[in-house]
Parts: sequence; C-alpha cells; structure tokens
Amino acid sequence: MPSTVIKNGTIVTADLTYTADVKIEGETITEIGTNLSGDTTLDATGCYVMPGGIDPHTHLEMPFMGTYSTDDFHSGTQAALAGGTTMVVDFAIQQPGQTLIEALQMWDNKSGRAHCDFSFHMAITGWDEQVFDDMKTVVQEKGINSFKHFMAYKGAMMVDDDEMYASFQRCAELGALPLVHAENGDVVAQMQAKLMAEGNDGPEGHAYSRPPEVEGEAVNRAIMLADMAGVPLYVVHTSCEQAHEAIRRARQKGMRVYGEPLIQHLVLDESEYFDKDWDHSARRVMSPPFRNKQHQDSLWAGLAAGSLQCVATDHCAFTTEQKRFGVGDFTKIPNGTGGLEDRLPLLWTHGVRTGRLTMNEFVAVTSTNSAKILNMYPKKGAVLAGADADLVVWDPEATKTISAKTQQSAIDYNVFEGMEVTGLPRFTLTRGHVAVEEGTMKSREGHGRFVKREPFQSV
Amino acid sequence: MPSTVIKNGTIVTADLTYTADVKIEGETITEIGTNLSGDTTLDATGCYVMPGGIDPHTHLEMPFMGTYSTDDFHSGTQAALAGGTTMVVDFAIQQPGQTLIEALQMWDNKSGRAHCDFSFHMAITGWDEQVFDDMKTVVQEKGINSFKHFMAYKGAMMVDDDEMYASFQRCAELGALPLVHAENGDVVAQMQAKLMAEGNDGPEGHAYSRPPEVEGEAVNRAIMLADMAGVPLYVVHTSCEQAHEAIRRARQKGMRVYGEPLIQHLVLDESEYFDKDWDHSARRVMSPPFRNKQHQDSLWAGLAAGSLQCVATDHCAFTTEQKRFGVGDFTKIPNGTGGLEDRLPLLWTHGVRTGRLTMNEFVAVTSTNSAKILNMYPKKGAVLAGADADLVVWDPEATKTISAKTQQSAIDYNVFEGMEVTGLPRFTLTRGHVAVEEGTMKSREGHGRFVKREPFQSV
Amino acid sequence: MPSTVIKNGTIVTADLTYTADVKIEGETITEIGTNLSGDTTLDATGCYVMPGGIDPHTHLEMPFMGTYSTDDFHSGTQAALAGGTTMVVDFAIQQPGQTLIEALQMWDNKSGRAHCDFSFHMAITGWDEQVFDDMKTVVQEKGINSFKHFMAYKGAMMVDDDEMYASFQRCAELGALPLVHAENGDVVAQMQAKLMAEGNDGPEGHAYSRPPEVEGEAVNRAIMLADMAGVPLYVVHTSCEQAHEAIRRARQKGMRVYGEPLIQHLVLDESEYFDKDWDHSARRVMSPPFRNKQHQDSLWAGLAAGSLQCVATDHCAFTTEQKRFGVGDFTKIPNGTGGLEDRLPLLWTHGVRTGRLTMNEFVAVTSTNSAKILNMYPKKGAVLAGADADLVVWDPEATKTISAKTQQSAIDYNVFEGMEVTGLPRFTLTRGHVAVEEGTMKSREGHGRFVKREPFQSV
Amino acid sequence: MPSTVIKNGTIVTADLTYTADVKIEGETITEIGTNLSGDTTLDATGCYVMPGGIDPHTHLEMPFMGTYSTDDFHSGTQAALAGGTTMVVDFAIQQPGQTLIEALQMWDNKSGRAHCDFSFHMAITGWDEQVFDDMKTVVQEKGINSFKHFMAYKGAMMVDDDEMYASFQRCAELGALPLVHAENGDVVAQMQAKLMAEGNDGPEGHAYSRPPEVEGEAVNRAIMLADMAGVPLYVVHTSCEQAHEAIRRARQKGMRVYGEPLIQHLVLDESEYFDKDWDHSARRVMSPPFRNKQHQDSLWAGLAAGSLQCVATDHCAFTTEQKRFGVGDFTKIPNGTGGLEDRLPLLWTHGVRTGRLTMNEFVAVTSTNSAKILNMYPKKGAVLAGADADLVVWDPEATKTISAKTQQSAIDYNVFEGMEVTGLPRFTLTRGHVAVEEGTMKSREGHGRFVKREPFQSV
Ligand SMILES: [Zn+2]
Ligand SMILES: [Zn+2]
Ligand SMILES: [Zn+2]
Ligand SMILES: [Zn+2]
Ligand SMILES: [Zn+2]
Ligand SMILES: [Zn+2]
Ligand SMILES: [Zn+2]
Ligand SMILES: [Zn+2]
Repeated sequence: MPSTVIKNGTIVTADLTYTADVKIEGETITEIGTNLSGDTTLDATGCYVMPGGIDPHTHLEMPFMGTYSTDDFHSGTQAALAGGTTMVVDFAIQQPGQTLIEALQMWDNKSGRAHCDFSFHMAITGWDEQVFDDMKTVVQEKGINSFKHFMAYKGAMMVDDDEMYASFQRCAELGALPLVHAENGDVVAQMQAKLMAEGNDGPEGHAYSRPPEVEGEAVNRAIMLADMAGVPLYVVHTSCEQAHEAIRRARQKGMRVYGEPLIQHLVLDESEYFDKDWDHSARRVMSPPFRNKQHQDSLWAGLAAGSLQCVATDHCAFTTEQKRFGVGDFTKIPNGTGGLEDRLPLLWTHGVRTGRLTMNEFVAVTSTNSAKILNMYPKKGAVLAGADADLVVWDPEATKTISAKTQQSAIDYNVFEGMEVTGLPRFTLTRGHVAVEEGTMKSREGHGRFVKREPFQSV
Repeated sequence: MPSTVIKNGTIVTADLTYTADVKIEGETITEIGTNLSGDTTLDATGCYVMPGGIDPHTHLEMPFMGTYSTDDFHSGTQAALAGGTTMVVDFAIQQPGQTLIEALQMWDNKSGRAHCDFSFHMAITGWDEQVFDDMKTVVQEKGINSFKHFMAYKGAMMVDDDEMYASFQRCAELGALPLVHAENGDVVAQMQAKLMAEGNDGPEGHAYSRPPEVEGEAVNRAIMLADMAGVPLYVVHTSCEQAHEAIRRARQKGMRVYGEPLIQHLVLDESEYFDKDWDHSARRVMSPPFRNKQHQDSLWAGLAAGSLQCVATDHCAFTTEQKRFGVGDFTKIPNGTGGLEDRLPLLWTHGVRTGRLTMNEFVAVTSTNSAKILNMYPKKGAVLAGADADLVVWDPEATKTISAKTQQSAIDYNVFEGMEVTGLPRFTLTRGHVAVEEGTMKSREGHGRFVKREPFQSV
Repeated sequence: MPSTVIKNGTIVTADLTYTADVKIEGETITEIGTNLSGDTTLDATGCYVMPGGIDPHTHLEMPFMGTYSTDDFHSGTQAALAGGTTMVVDFAIQQPGQTLIEALQMWDNKSGRAHCDFSFHMAITGWDEQVFDDMKTVVQEKGINSFKHFMAYKGAMMVDDDEMYASFQRCAELGALPLVHAENGDVVAQMQAKLMAEGNDGPEGHAYSRPPEVEGEAVNRAIMLADMAGVPLYVVHTSCEQAHEAIRRARQKGMRVYGEPLIQHLVLDESEYFDKDWDHSARRVMSPPFRNKQHQDSLWAGLAAGSLQCVATDHCAFTTEQKRFGVGDFTKIPNGTGGLEDRLPLLWTHGVRTGRLTMNEFVAVTSTNSAKILNMYPKKGAVLAGADADLVVWDPEATKTISAKTQQSAIDYNVFEGMEVTGLPRFTLTRGHVAVEEGTMKSREGHGRFVKREPFQSV
Repeated sequence: MPSTVIKNGTIVTADLTYTADVKIEGETITEIGTNLSGDTTLDATGCYVMPGGIDPHTHLEMPFMGTYSTDDFHSGTQAALAGGTTMVVDFAIQQPGQTLIEALQMWDNKSGRAHCDFSFHMAITGWDEQVFDDMKTVVQEKGINSFKHFMAYKGAMMVDDDEMYASFQRCAELGALPLVHAENGDVVAQMQAKLMAEGNDGPEGHAYSRPPEVEGEAVNRAIMLADMAGVPLYVVHTSCEQAHEAIRRARQKGMRVYGEPLIQHLVLDESEYFDKDWDHSARRVMSPPFRNKQHQDSLWAGLAAGSLQCVATDHCAFTTEQKRFGVGDFTKIPNGTGGLEDRLPLLWTHGVRTGRLTMNEFVAVTSTNSAKILNMYPKKGAVLAGADADLVVWDPEATKTISAKTQQSAIDYNVFEGMEVTGLPRFTLTRGHVAVEEGTMKSREGHGRFVKREPFQSV
C-alpha cells in the first residue's frame, strides 16, 4: 500500500496542538509520530495539519422548480476540497409522490460523481404510516441517523407541530437526531403575500418577510417539542440572537440542543439586501436572511462559549439566471448561496486571526463537533491513527482575494467577491488522496463515498 | 335622587391613599371630600374604600358537553359581590354552527340575571370571511374590543397560527386587543393520548399532560404573532415562569404584552393533584394546572415588578357530579375551578399582609389595571367623581375561614376550603346599590348591566 | 384669594386623560370640573394640562475645584420653568470638614433664590458615628428621606462597600431611600491613570475610562447591598443595558429597585465624544458618558415596560471656560451637562410623538413617579384638588429649535443645540403663579420653597 | 525500563470512547493499540481506562489559627489516589510577613511527602511592589501560572478591588490566570457580626451569613475586573445560580470565564446545617455553604452545557476537635470539608449513572478541562502516548458505602457518610506506579512530584 507522510507541521485538533508527522497508508492515518517516512512526503513546514472540514449542511443538485441548484456533487465537492473541506452532509428530500427510500435512491444516484466523502440527512416533509415505517429502514439499514424538519416553506416541505412532534418521538425511539429549519412558515407566507400585495416585490422583501422574531419563535417551539419527545435537537442555520437565546435557555435547563451558524451570517449582514443592483441582492437571498451586526456578535460569542457548535454553509448555489426566476416576485427567487469553498478561509480570517476563536475551537466548529454530533467521530473529524485520512494542511499566512473567476463552484458569482482571506489549504487530502495542492485541483470524480452513520445509543 | 355617603374611611386607589368621604348619587360617585352628607351613611371606620374588584376572566354558565358550568350569571355574580368584586368580564364563545353575533346574543340572554355589571370578550374559534366581517360589527356596534384565541383544546376551539395571525391583524385594524389561552394544543393532545394509552387516567394525568414548557412555548409564539401583526397582547392565566419569562422578554423589547396570573396559581400548588381522593384532585383540574412553588414566586414577583398586571380567577365552576364525567378518563374532567368569591380576600391575605404588594398595587391588579387594559377606565376601576359607584369598603381585620358551606357559589365544594383569610368586604356597592353588608347579601337579580367598551385608538 | 382657571384643556395625568377645567386658588388646585370660573382665565385650547415636571436629579451651584457649577438656584430654576419643570431635587453634599447638617445649611442658603420649589437628597460621602447620628436628624427634622452614595469619584466622595452597607442599613431603620451613583470607582481611577499615562488626555478618554461594564457592575453590587440591608434602591443616571439588566434581574426577584435614565442618554450617543472640536466633546463630558444606540433602545424599552421609572437630567452646567480646566487632562474636565430646560420637550418629541410612550407614561416618568418614589405625592406630581398648583399647559404642536442663544441657562452653549422639538409649555405654573407664558419668563426669584419629604413607613 | 500493559479495557477520554490496550514504560504512556504486551499486565475487563482525576482545588496542611488542616500531602494524596485522583493543585498562601517566594518554599517543603503529583496556585493576599515583582518570578521561574484572590475573609486574606484589578493586569502581562474566591467580604463580615450580636452563634449562622446573592455579586465584580484587565478568569467553588448566571452572561459576551462547582455543592444541600447535632453541622461548614436543590440543578446543567468546566473538592479537612474551636462562635469554625476520595465515585453515581453527563463529559470535568485550563495538557489529563501514566481503571459496577471508617483521609468523619456509590477505581496509576489495586493502597510516600505549568501565550 502506498504511503504518504506529512512532515514538519503542527497538528491542530479540537483537543490539542502539537508537533508531529502524520503517516497515511492507503486511505487511513496509520501513525502519528516523529521522524516518520513514507513513499511520498508532503511538506507542512509553517503549516497546521488539521482534520479536513466537514460541512454538515449542503444542498447539491437540489431539485427546484423544474431545475436544480447548479453546484452538484461534482462541482460542489470540488469547491469543498479547494477550501479544505473533505466531507459534506447533504439533505435527501422527498419529491411529491416519493417515499423516503426512493428519495434516498435519487440522492445515491446523484452523489456518484462526488470528489469527497459525503453523508445524508433525510428530510421529513409529511407524516403517515409509511414515513413512520421507513424511518426505521433509513436508520437501521441506510446508515442515516438524522432527520430534517422544515418549519417553513408552507405548502411545500413544511410540517406542522403535530407531525414534527410525532417524528421527534420516532427519532427518540430509533436513536436518531432531529434537525429543524426553524422559521414560522405561516407567518412568512402571510408576510410574503402582504409585501407582494403592497408592491414590494424586490429581493429586500425577502429579508422583510423573515425577521429574527420569526426564527426565534420557531426555534423555541422546536426545542419544546424535542424536550417533550425526549430527544436532542440540532438547529440548522441559527442566524440571530433570538434563536441563539432560545438555545442557550434550553441548554441551561440541561437539554442537549445544538446550533449551527453559517459562515454567511457570520461575515455578511443585512445591508447586502439594500444594494440597488437587483442581481447583487437576489444572489444573496437565502433563508434565514442575513442579519445585523448585533446578531453577528451573538453568533461569534456562541461559538467561543460553546452554546453554538458547528459552522456550516447551507451551500445551495444558483446562477444569476436561475435567481432571475424571481424578477418581479421575490418569493420566486431560488433560496440559497454558495460558501463551501470559502467557509474555512473566512472563519480563520475573521475568527482565529481576530482572536475570537482559538485554533482548536476552529477545528471543533468546522469539523470535529459535526463528526461527534452526527456520530461519525473519530472516523471523521480526527487526526488519529485509524481515522480516515481526510486532512487539510493549512498555511496560516497564505492569502487570496475571493473571486468567482477563480472558484471551483460552477456559478457565475460569489457572495464574498472581493473579500481578502488569510489562511488557505496548502494540501487537502480526502481519504489519503491529495486532492488539492497549493491551489491546484487534483481531485477525482467519483472518489467520494457515502459515510454510514450509526444510530445513537439511548442516553 | 337618593344619596349615600361613605364616611370615615381611607380611600385606596391604584394611585393614592388618602382620607375622604365618598358621596354617591344614584349609580354614580358625585363627590369626594370631607364632611359630606347624604340620605344614607355607610360607616367605613377602620376600612379602606377601594374600587370594586374587576374579574377580567370568568366563564359563567358556559356550555360544556351538553351541560353548563354550574355558576351562572345569577350565582356567579352573587359570589363576585360577596367577595368584593363588582364586575366580571365573561367569554362569549361560538357554538358549532353559530356566528359571532349569534354567540353574543346567547350570552346577552344568559346575562339578564346578573347581580353586578359585566362585559364580554369574544372568542375566535375559527376563521373565514364571516368571522372577519363580524369582528367589525362586534367592535363597532356591540361594544366589545377584545378577542380570545385558544391555542389549545384541539379539535374544539383551538385555532392554528395562520388563523391566529389573521385575527391578530384584524384586531390591529379594528383597535381591538387579542387575548390568548396559551398552551400548545397539538402537544397536549398527544400527551393526553399517550398518558391514557399507558393507563394514567386519573386527574394527575391532567397535570402531566400540560407541563410549563408547553405553556411557555405558546406564549412565546403568540407574542411573536402579535409583534408581527403590530398589536398588543393579553395572556390569560399566566401560570409559570416559562410564560412569564417570555412576557418579560417581549416587554424589554418595548412590546405591550400583558400577563394575568390567577389567584389559584398564586396560592395553590401542584401537590393538590397528588391527593389520593379522586374528587379532591378532579375538582382542581383546570388549564393550565397548578404549578410548583418556584412558579408561584415568579408570579408574585411579576405582580410587584409590573411585568404581570391583572389577577383573575377563570371562574368556571363545575359540581363534583359534573367533574365525575371524567372518572376513568381525565381528559373528560370538565376544566375549571371557582374563585370569584375568594380572589380579593386571598390576595389581600397572601399579598398585602405578607408585604409582597402594597395596597395600591392590590387595587391595581384586582381592578384598575383591568379597567385600563380593557378600555373602561375610569368608568370602572376608579374612585373618582363621575365614575360608577362600584366600590368595596374593605375591612382589613375581618377574618373568616373559606368554606363551601357558607359560599354564594352554587357548587358543592371550594378549592380553598379551610384556608383562613384576613381582609373582607364590609360593604360592596354595585352602581350605588349596597349589595353586600357585613356578610349579608342584599344584591338584586338583574341589576347588572352590560358595559360597552370602545375600540382603542391607534397608538 | 385670587383664583385662576385653566379652561378648555385636556387633563393628562399618569393615570388618566380627560377634559376638564382646573381651578386654582392661591397656590393650590381647589377644583377640577366643567364650567369653572375665576379671576383669571388661562386658555388651554388644544393643550394638555399636566403636572409640572419634577427633576429628581440636579446639581445647582455645586462646588467644584474652587468654583461652582454655573447654573445656580436662580438661573437653574428659571431654565426648569421655561421647560415645564416646576420642581427640582438637588443634592446637598458635604464639603471636607462639614457635617451633614452644615452641608444642608449651605444648600438652604443657596436655594433662597429659587424660582420654583425644590427638595434635597443628602449625600453620604464617608461614615462615622456623627454621620450615623446626623442621618436621623436629617430624616426626622429636616424633611429629607433620601441619601445619595457615590460608588465613583475615588479620593473624593466615593464610599466603599462597608460604608455603603452601613448606610443602607441605617436607611432601612429610618425609613429612608438610598440612591447610588453606580460606577466602580477603583477601576475608573486606574483606567484614567492608564489613559493619561498613554497620552490619551482628550475628552474621548473620559468615555473610554467609564465603559458600561463598570457601571453595570456597580449597579449589581449596590442592589445586593440593598437586598441584604432590606431597603429599596434608586439608581441614578442608569445609562446602559448592563445596569438596566441588573435592575430587571432584581425586580424579577421581587426587589424594589428603581432606575433613572437621563434625557441626555436617551437622545445623545457616544459619537459626540469623537467630535474633533475639543470644546464640543468636553461640553458633553458627564458621568456616566453617553452610550451607543443599543443602550438607548434598552432605556426606552425600560420606560415603556416600567422597569425604569424616572427621566432626569443630572443638570450640572459648566461654562466652556470651566470645561477648559481639563485641557490636557480629561480627568479635570468638570463633569456635567445641562438639560433642565429641554427634558420635557425632548422626551415628548422622541418619546410620545414616536409612539414609544403614551402621554400618561410621559407624565409618570417626568413627574408622578418621582413624586411617589420620593414620598411627596400627591402634593407634587398630581392634578388633584388639594395638590400644589404646579402645572404645565402643554402645547403639543408648538415647535422650536434648541439653542443656547435663547435659553434660560446661564452657560454659553447647549448640548442639544440645533435639535428641533415639538411640544412646549404654553404656560408653566409654580404654586399657582404663572411663571412662563408662551415663552415669556414671568417667574419670581425667591418664590421657590423647600418641600419636606416624610420618611417611608416600614413596608 | 519495566513496562505495564492495561488490557481489555475501554479507553474513555474527554474526546473519545474506544477499545484499546495502553502500554506504559516507566512513568509514561508509550503506546495505545491492540494486542500490546509488557512485563506486567493489568486486567481492565469490564472497565473504563480514563485519565486520572485532577483536583484543581485543595488545601493540604493549610495553616489555620496556630494549627493545620489535618489532611496533609501524605494522607491527602493517599485519599486522592484511593478515589482515582492522580493530581492535586494546592494553594500556596503567604503567611503574615512572608513573601510569595517564601510561601512557595514552605509549600515545597510540605509537599515532599506527596503520593501523587501536584502543582500550586499562588495566592495574592495583598499588593505592593514586592508582590508585583515576585509574580514574575513565580510565573517565569517557579512554574506557576495561576494566582488566587480572596474577595472574602476580611482582615485576613481579602484583597480589595484596587488590588485585585492591579493583580489581574499583572496576570495579563505575565500570561497567568487569575482565580477568585468570590464572596463579598465586607458584607459577610457585617452579617457575621450581626448574627453573633443577635445570639445566632451556631453553625447555621455560617450559612445565613453567606447567601447566594453575596457570592453572585462578587463573581459579577471579578468578571468585570477581568474584562477590563483583558484576562480570562477562573471562579473557584461556584455554588449557586447567581454566580453561574454571571458566568454565563460573561461567556455570552465572548469572555473566557470558567466556573468550578464542588462535588459537595452538587450532592449536598443546605438542610445539612439545620441538623440539631452541632458536630454534624459544623463539620459541613465551608465557604460558600451548601445551597438548595435549585442551585444544584443549575450547577448540573452548567456541567452539561459547558458553562461550568471543572468539578473540584476544595478539600480542606479538619477534625471534629478542630471544628470545635467554633463552639459558641460560628465564625471560628475552621472552614472546609473533605472530598478528595469521593469526588469521582460521587460524580459518576449522580452524574453519569443518572444520564446527566456522558462518560466523556465526566472525564472532561474531573480531569481534562483542568489540565487544559491550567496549561498542563496533555502531560496530564490525557490518555495519549507521551502523556504521564496517570490513569484510573474504572469499574463502573463496583459499589461501596462511603464511611469514615474505611477512608484514607486522616479525619474522624466524612461529610458523605452513608452514601452509596457505584463506580470505583480498580487500579489507580500515578506516573506508572500502581498506587491502588482493588481497594488496597500501594502508594509511595514522596512519589509525587511538582508539575511545572508554563505561562499562557498571549491570545
Ligand atoms: Zn433551511
Ligand atoms: Zn438548507
Ligand atoms: Zn383558558
Ligand atoms: Zn378561561
Ligand atoms: Zn452621578
Ligand atoms: Zn448627579
Ligand atoms: Zn475559597
Ligand atoms: Zn479553597
């Protein structure tokens, strides 16, 4: 078996910082020590050797209004690797008429082109006996232990309290973790209608229709449902203080509730929607929308305090042309932005270099915490002998200016266009394969594999 | 016009404590001053002259499973007067197939026997164009400016978020105040079913099925809906810290949210449900159920701090026989307890005499705040020239032991049986008529009149 | 006795809004009713008749570094009346070597020129048996029931925890209310020294040396001391969320804690200190310094929610020349700004006209609450027969632009210069005398009298 | 070098649970893997192999009123090892007239008998240039990076805000961590005097004199001082919600503040002080005193949520005879209880077995977090090759009843007497030496060594 040694670097994990070489044989880390040697040597002088990033929240090639989000498992995972992320967890979502199992099959098909490893969360978009039964299959046979619930997108994927509570109880039985997209969908729908009726059809209407209170309410409600069902809860894209406060309040009662801020909400704010260029604003339409600086401060503090655990992207990239479906009607603008390629450099730049986060916390929130919460640690998220050789050799002094021109993502713009970052991958390894080297892509289509995740033991 | 003068007392209002005589001509206070004289003199030596109590939350002769709550406008208002309360605000609730206007007519009919004045809140138990239109009539022609929404009682009166938000917006347009019974009805229904399925069919199951988190969630949700609709909110029977915390959080954002603890929740606790006597426990079944001491402390502090405004009873008195509908199935126990006769003496005893509340705060939370919030001040809730002569001459040293044997209420028990109170009415006057004198009832059936309440001005 | 009637106005009190005439005989309101007549008539058409403002916090002719604050009881009370304020409560502060009684004598002497009524708080700036004994005299013979404690101004007026706790216990015995200027003086002193040592000697250094945390900490500490001593607490110049949060936390435990935001902190922010003009910044030097918008939002919400009770000015006006004592050393800039003349118009403009406060709340926070908390209600702060005829006839549509050129204050600038206000006195009456009429001063030197305030009853 | 292998166990660290053997050569872990062999084999079948406990807070042979706390480095460290704790961090405290360096010398002398490793915190009990200078020596030459500050014990070790702020700033310069014993010493002293004057001289007076508010205030104050000084803060013996709330509030602002509950406060409550047996109560006198169940719930939730990090003992064991110094004057009862031997079994029993904490969290709060926060990770607190072989082989099913009769501690009672625990060490290893085997002590006097702790890098 060919071996590779990463030499002269400093290993940084969620737990520890120390100097050692890392030896990889095949797809696996086999040794960590000094003076290791192998067939190939990667020089990590001046660099940190960290677990590759895990993005717990992406939407690659997501069906939408007869088309698909443009970054698929091909371009999307390339973007991931280019930015030091070596695994994505995507959402398998039933289409009308599909069963959970059929939806999963569809996602299996799509993911064949992946350049890095991946796993799935399964979305629950309705409730009946078939769903109840299929959840067991999903957990026990398909290697998926997390179920997503949309509290918004009324008339589409939204579930009501009754359905959500039933599903949460089922999760408790099966040892699965419920996730929520938390916004009050009834209110959003009415606010959208009202704004449109008043002639507010531009992208800023998107932000107006989804204020922080609407998110905070839904988080609070989901927490109560999880508490009653006796199950932990993972709140995706926690974007505001209201949501974060509800999470903190629950945790202080001893509940196991997790919050996931997105890199977009950490570094971009609501002023983006007031840009007079329709395209500029529409490209930034995502749910929840960007918030103001106070909300950002809350999220950063949460990462440092441990009340928020994972930084994700909700990567769901639509081209400008796709965004323009919503000209004249902001409710038709496809929701989503990119971020996979920029998550780690931006978080390093705005988090570690500013002193808000330690390097160990950086690893925790970009990789290790997700691996633990989603039950795939230490196969993923670790620099340990026996772990998958998903690694990033991080050059803390390398810089670049983010630009659509040089990105891996297949879309024609980047919401972070023009931002300078310091801290970039020198090498990104996916299961031992050097997929990125000093900015050059060497990844392989189809290299990525599905990562099974076992159910949780009852606590 | 015959005149009455209350002499030698100390006037206590929400605002002020001072010595003066009060002169009443006909139904109205006409003068406050010294050395007043009239046809009749009531001696208030050693007493406080206060605005009669207003109970903002009663259910007299409420239809229930083919029968009615036993205290009707006859016995219920007698109980009120006996305890120093001179006005009740009852809930007009549509029966299946009725319009709002028809429901109101039904309540008008019932209230003809009232011994003291009364007004109505109108319940919104569904949503369609007729309701939308009728709300205008109710506000503009019927003299009712407050609408109740049940977030629980699934399959019966419960409204969902969409309906509630629509109704709140309608309230905003009309200058009306929305009220909520805040418990998450979906969760309660599932918990009830689960408890019954597990064989927990006794009255304690009622308490287990409605934990504080379920109430707190609903309050939080209603607040968000009111905030989005741009309307104040009144939360009936606030029973726990979770609900109270949500109210405080809203108020600290500048919102106008009001909370109403019940006298039952202030002085009784959850241990009542663990009594081995089925009757004992079942008689105390109400929603929300009684809570523990920590929740009581929270409510008392809220009254002192001003974060909670009104003490009510939710008086809805069923006989033991009626309660026994629920033998073998706690979900069939009629919800409700009495309290009209005991509210003021208990609050004085446990609030004023313990130093938790000042006398002025006592008047505020038993009378004046309700009058202001429901827009009938200073006709009601005041000791002012021009105000209705609804007064209580309060003897702070008079004592009694609460007992069903001596009560005005028509039921066969009293949930406060055996509690000693200090502080009782010497006289209770309803629009100038001395309805109670030293414990003797002199009230008149049919004396009570409907009090019109004007819509609120836009703020 | 000559009589005056205010006709055609709408009476607005903390409690009530209604239409009536007000009759004054001599110095006292004698009748409120319709169709009243008297020797003189003041036309209040289109106006609100409100209790004159009470400023619970001023420093007139305050000794400072061998000079005095420039507005004395002469010019200061003229400024008060011009702005609708009819009473000030000033701080009698011992000078080195003085007893409390001697300090009080000094303040009595100064106040002889007052144009409106006044009272005193007594400052406790050290602790020994003489102070312990004199406090009794002050309360029982001098008509003063409130004692101020400086937690800052180290080496001058500051008291330590031991002294403060002893004084609070003494207040509890005497039925007196402790007040605190809450900033951690040890930290301020060290931060001042550090900033000066680093060459930061400009006025902005003043703000840097007194961050919100330093205020919040002191408020929290004072609350604990009051809680242990069993006495209420009044926190002067509450300027920030940290302080306000501590107050809310205490109130939610059932404690009686009051907070007093200043009009300056409500409408001006910290950006004033970054003005490049030394004079501009130095004129705005006061303690605590102005804060940012988030803190302002917190204060406004507190006034609406009732967690903050009184709006004051801390009026302490120094000329530009006096401010320049601090050129080259910000610690020598005399602390204080004016505000007496502008408090009511600014609060009306930014509070009532924006919908943040009702008119009744405006009266409460500018007048009635202070009267109640300081135990002089309803002699002051009320529109009631028997109350002092301290009244303002308020024209809600009158406008002006604030300017030093037209002010009554004796200093050469105004920190609100150029701000437009809507809402001004048409008439201001002090104990029946029309001191201001449509902007023309008719006040009388020496008209003002000391208002005795009785000790509180034990609760 | 002799080697030992721990076989057939499950390794449990703060990070991870997995099956592997652990090989130890000399004093160090040299290999973790499968099928390891060595000179000696320890069978861990059915056991967890965890980092030995670290107690970050002990007082061994502490001078007190002419005597010493009875457990010294000899008996104290035996007690530690018996309970699975392999390191203690003791407090070196200046005696009157001593310099920091002299105090350290004294502690060095005492620690010669230690059976397990140890380190020191240095107490700062006053402030002058010598202290300022010596702090540098302590940090840079003596291997101590943490300084304790007593905010209580007035007239003895207490420092005031000025001194504490100066010391905190010095810590910031030197890369050291300040610790605080947080209680307002001024208030405690006055309350003690008051209670004694009133004749309340029994042990319950100790609890009355130190209510939670007094602790919460001090924590809040210390946090502000640390924030201003730009240094993290470690709050020892966090016993109540008030203190915990202050810590959470700080953390939510992004501050690095750590809280340390004691095992005593987690499992014992205030009712202990109401025992009629003077000895019973006096033996439990420690500061802060035990609190009620609500405070316990807060502490447990904090350990789960991560807002509290380390469980300690504050082990300071006095005999009943020593406790009786305080007969007739509770202020003379020596403060302190034991706990070293019982900390891990009690936390496992009440934390892990009840589901409140995971096994990984158990390791974190008993060992790893202390090692990280005190900067000695991964030498201590880890199961890693290269780490010191301080290990506990934990039998999760072993049980015993705690009793003074069978304890290692030298005193005549145990505050946990009679409590049953499940979860005990099968083996405890200190730097490779098997000090405890199935309840039999095999530890060696003098085996323990001082652990140097480097200063922190500036963040
Ligand atoms: Zn989403
Ligand atoms: Zn998503
Ligand atoms: Zn209800
Ligand atoms: Zn009701
Ligand atoms: Zn001040
Ligand atoms: Zn002042
Ligand atoms: Zn201590
Ligand atoms: Zn200690």
